[in-house]
Amino acid sequence: MSIHPTALVSPRAQLGANVTIGAYTIVEDNVVIGDNSTIGSHCELGHPSRLADGSPLQLGSGALVRSHSIFYEGSSFGDNLVTGHRVTVREGTRAGKNLQIGTLSDFQGHCEIGDYVRTHSNVHIGQHSKVGNFVWIFPYVVLTNDPHPPSDVMLGCEIGDYAIVATMSVVLPGVKVGQHALVAAHSNVARDVDAFTVVGGSPAKFLCPTEKIRLKDGTERPAYPWPSHFQRGYPPEIQQQLRDMFGA
Amino acid sequence: MSIHPTALVSPRAQLGANVTIGAYTIVEDNVVIGDNSTIGSHCELGHPSRLADGSPLQLGSGALVRSHSIFYEGSSFGDNLVTGHRVTVREGTRAGKNLQIGTLSDFQGHCEIGDYVRTHSNVHIGQHSKVGNFVWIFPYVVLTNDPHPPSDVMLGCEIGDYAIVATMSVVLPGVKVGQHALVAAHSNVARDVDAFTVVGGSPAKFLCPTEKIRLKDGTERPAYPWPSHFQRGYPPEIQQQLRDMFGA
Amino acid sequence: MSIHPTALVSPRAQLGANVTIGAYTIVEDNVVIGDNSTIGSHCELGHPSRLADGSPLQLGSGALVRSHSIFYEGSSFGDNLVTGHRVTVREGTRAGKNLQIGTLSDFQGHCEIGDYVRTHSNVHIGQHSKVGNFVWIFPYVVLTNDPHPPSDVMLGCEIGDYAIVATMSVVLPGVKVGQHALVAAHSNVARDVDAFTVVGGSPAKFLCPTEKIRLKDGTERPAYPWPSHFQRGYPPEIQQQLRDMFGA
Repeated sequence: MSIHPTALVSPRAQLGANVTIGAYTIVEDNVVIGDNSTIGSHCELGHPSRLADGSPLQLGSGALVRSHSIFYEGSSFGDNLVTGHRVTVREGTRAGKNLQIGTLSDFQGHCEIGDYVRTHSNVHIGQHSKVGNFVWIFPYVVLTNDPHPPSDVMLGCEIGDYAIVATMSVVLPGVKVGQHALVAAHSNVARDVDAFTVVGGSPAKFLCPTEKIRLKDGTERPAYPWPSHFQRGYPPEIQQQLRDMFGA
Repeated sequence: MSIHPTALVSPRAQLGANVTIGAYTIVEDNVVIGDNSTIGSHCELGHPSRLADGSPLQLGSGALVRSHSIFYEGSSFGDNLVTGHRVTVREGTRAGKNLQIGTLSDFQGHCEIGDYVRTHSNVHIGQHSKVGNFVWIFPYVVLTNDPHPPSDVMLGCEIGDYAIVATMSVVLPGVKVGQHALVAAHSNVARDVDAFTVVGGSPAKFLCPTEKIRLKDGTERPAYPWPSHFQRGYPPEIQQQLRDMFGA
Repeated sequence: MSIHPTALVSPRAQLGANVTIGAYTIVEDNVVIGDNSTIGSHCELGHPSRLADGSPLQLGSGALVRSHSIFYEGSSFGDNLVTGHRVTVREGTRAGKNLQIGTLSDFQGHCEIGDYVRTHSNVHIGQHSKVGNFVWIFPYVVLTNDPHPPSDVMLGCEIGDYAIVATMSVVLPGVKVGQHALVAAHSNVARDVDAFTVVGGSPAKFLCPTEKIRLKDGTERPAYPWPSHFQRGYPPEIQQQLRDMFGA
């Protein structure tokens, strides 16, 4: 255990073995942190929220939360969460294991995130979003939910397993992006996207099947499904599983 | 009065009755905070600026400024300001009462904001913007001002009362968005928008009158003017006023 | 030298003469800061990174780093760096002199930035980007690098000297924007942009030569090359040089 002398850690917070807390970080009462986790400086964990109904912020083991991040109480994360800096996560987020959240990303809470998901910087996840497993979301993407803002109607998006949403794209309320689909950069997605297809534009239109896209590495191999050539950063056993499933 | 022992509060700052200042927050000299206000942790209020001409940062009563926010000196806010986290507000911002500023929003200053305005996360308000009353601005919207950047010509946008600008839209310099108009998501607004109309696309074009849009809650009631069905979060007397005006 | 008593400055960090460090700021071991520099509050300089290969964070003289900013070790900046608040700069950034980085901007590292470059707020510079001299990049612009995300193929963008990328535009992987070119707001740039041309839209198309755009200040003078009428904020000798070169 290594708590910086300037950190303000509530005696009610439950810290696992071998937890490190950085300078100027605040850990509120209603927080449970798993073993072998590291919390950077200037963070605020367990920010109180009426909307959390008393449930804690729960981080699994092996978490790495980088500096200036803010997590509300009332959310739970599987093991091996990794975040960039200045992440904001509100109450009601239910996330699986090995989630990576990019710098400045903003999870609005009341959403479901699968396993091995990665968001790049500055991703905005609206309430009631459902994000599958092994999904990639790139910078400045917004998952919306209100079909006629402002209103009390909330239609979350669904992003299927292995799907990719490229930078500066908006997924409109209630839209489903199929498994292994690719939303091209700077798109506005108003209709459901079929599995294994590429859409792009504003409004986004069908461009081609994902299998048409070839790697620009000189090999001309198919670029999708991406796990056929890219497994960097996943745990070794998952890398093997991806290779076995997708024929790398 | 409750000032966290780690907060650095200038003795020159004028704090009202029952003000709370969070941990690791800095309150500079030229700051006036109204009664019953709460400032979160890791904030910086009254950041000095030559451009403020010595005028203070003035927060009305009942302010709630969430953590990691930065306000320059030289701006004023009516009562009941509420902010998300990591808000940046520069000098010369003149805002009415009950403003809500979303997490990560960036007000460039030298702008006018009416009463009961709400910005969602990550909204960028350029200098010389004029935002009316009861306006809604959604994530990653940019109100611009320079018609041929970089230059010294500043043509601020005007957003009319009750208008809505949906996520990831840009309003180009000098454009006026009429009262009760709706700018759809991911739009690039190059021309003035008539009151009570919907525009969308890049460049944004007229789509339909707002009255054509129906609530997706099974009732098929008109979704606009939005105060006919949505008054959440406004003070009770304002809720009644909205219902009276818009026939809820 | 003025180090705030709450700042945590490693004795291994090398600070020049007349350096100011703000409250609650952390300066790690592997940091070199030039003379007459000012670091704001709540910053983190020299964030350790395996990917930095032991090279330091190096700031030239006269740096002004505003509050809540984070710089990794393994990057270098010429003299007179100025940043807004909450800037993130990762390892492997090589920047020239007089760089201005806007609030919330996110430099992913492993990139090259010339002299006298200015980014406005919330600009995202992907790895392997090459940004020339006197370039302007406006809010919410993303310079991308991966032609088929996620992959290990990195094709950085190149932005030529004096070029301008306006707000909410994406420059796709490997795209070259020519000298003095202008990318209009809310564009998706998929092809190289010729020098002295304006492109816009999604996908971005040729709109006109830059010389066709006239200043909206009543004079009808050409707005581009922009240094013919705009030199604000540059050092006096550079202002003179710009005037001499571009005929102001």
